Amino acid sequence: MNHIPQSITNLINQFAKLPGIGQKTASRLTYYLLRKSGQDVLDFGQAMTNLKKNLISCSRCHNYANQDPCSICQDPKRDPQTICVIEQPLDIIAVEKTGFKGHYHVLHGALAPIEGIGPEHLTLENLKNKVNNNDMFELIIATNPNLEGEATAIYIQNMLSDQNIKITRLAFGLPMGIDLEYTDEITLTKAFEGRK
Amino acid sequence: MNHIPQSITNLINQFAKLPGIGQKTASRLTYYLLRKSGQDVLDFGQAMTNLKKNLISCSRCHNYANQDPCSICQDPKRDPQTICVIEQPLDIIAVEKTGFKGHYHVLHGALAPIEGIGPEHLTLENLKNKVNNNDMFELIIATNPNLEGEATAIYIQNMLSDQNIKITRLAFGLPMGIDLEYTDEITLTKAFEGRK
Repeated sequence: MNHIPQSITNLINQFAKLPGIGQKTASRLTYYLLRKSGQDVLDFGQAMTNLKKNLISCSRCHNYANQDPCSICQDPKRDPQTICVIEQPLDIIAVEKTGFKGHYHVLHGALAPIEGIGPEHLTLENLKNKVNNNDMFELIIATNPNLEGEATAIYIQNMLSDQNIKITRLAFGLPMGIDLEYTDEITLTKAFEGRK
Repeated sequence: MNHIPQSITNLINQFAKLPGIGQKTASRLTYYLLRKSGQDVLDFGQAMTNLKKNLISCSRCHNYANQDPCSICQDPKRDPQTICVIEQPLDIIAVEKTGFKGHYHVLHGALAPIEGIGPEHLTLENLKNKVNNNDMFELIIATNPNLEGEATAIYIQNMLSDQNIKITRLAFGLPMGIDLEYTDEITLTKAFEGRK
């Protein structure tokens, strides 16, 4: 890569740092941008540079926001008595599409002792305070269906066991549109257990 | 996406414009960057903004360069009598890895009449002048092995048929490491034709 201008290799290296993007894809994306107009590339750079400007963490739900509390926590049309607990802010995009109209609580991770992520690294203390101080009705735990997500869900259930609050978890079972023969046995077992 | 801060949706939309990156991947990449330090994100934005700064097109080979002629055309260790004709500047990265030590000529595309790309849109005139004015020995046509690349290769061969110059094409045949039974019939036919 000796003969490639520095500004090109710089951007290739930046793209290659992104998850799921290797050196080849990074090169392809960079050379794609080289064929675009200068303004298009500047707009992209500007969007990147501005990403974190004026961005704060909502003190109630810990989601990224422009004001505190965030627009979801402030929305009078949403139900503050129902709170959906999620691992990452990105999960909100998926949950919003279901038409959920409650509030959120972003944990910013899941318990992973092997990686050194304990309860103190998540926003669990804040969740406990929120449940203590608010007239809450239902806490929906929507952590990911994997080892870390399961552990986190159980930890939250134990942490709040003395509270007068309904704690639910998202249902496990068959994803829509799948063929039964291709379903893994853990999912199928969960689907049997959850039958109604 | 009403409740997502504008700076986040802006970057998602920019990522989603890239080839092979849909809305979901764009969101994932953006939220990945949100977890990175502010400096990392600024560096990425800076690399993007600086991409086209001081970048020119080499007047000899039409590759992106910082100076004219570019570092490849200026390199005394490279052979100016052998020129490899490629469609895009990105192809140089691949060819360089083979250890090729000649010069390049970037066409910036391939003939595609249906999409309205004719000979006048490529750097063919310049290639002709180069062959006329230089003491050249071999022109290696390394256009892509598809319809447009083939058409471009044939066009160049015809254009330079009156010149005293050796014109070659990259060999077609089996890619290394593949199983014969998975090879498509056109590739296999080419491999038979090119047997030696």
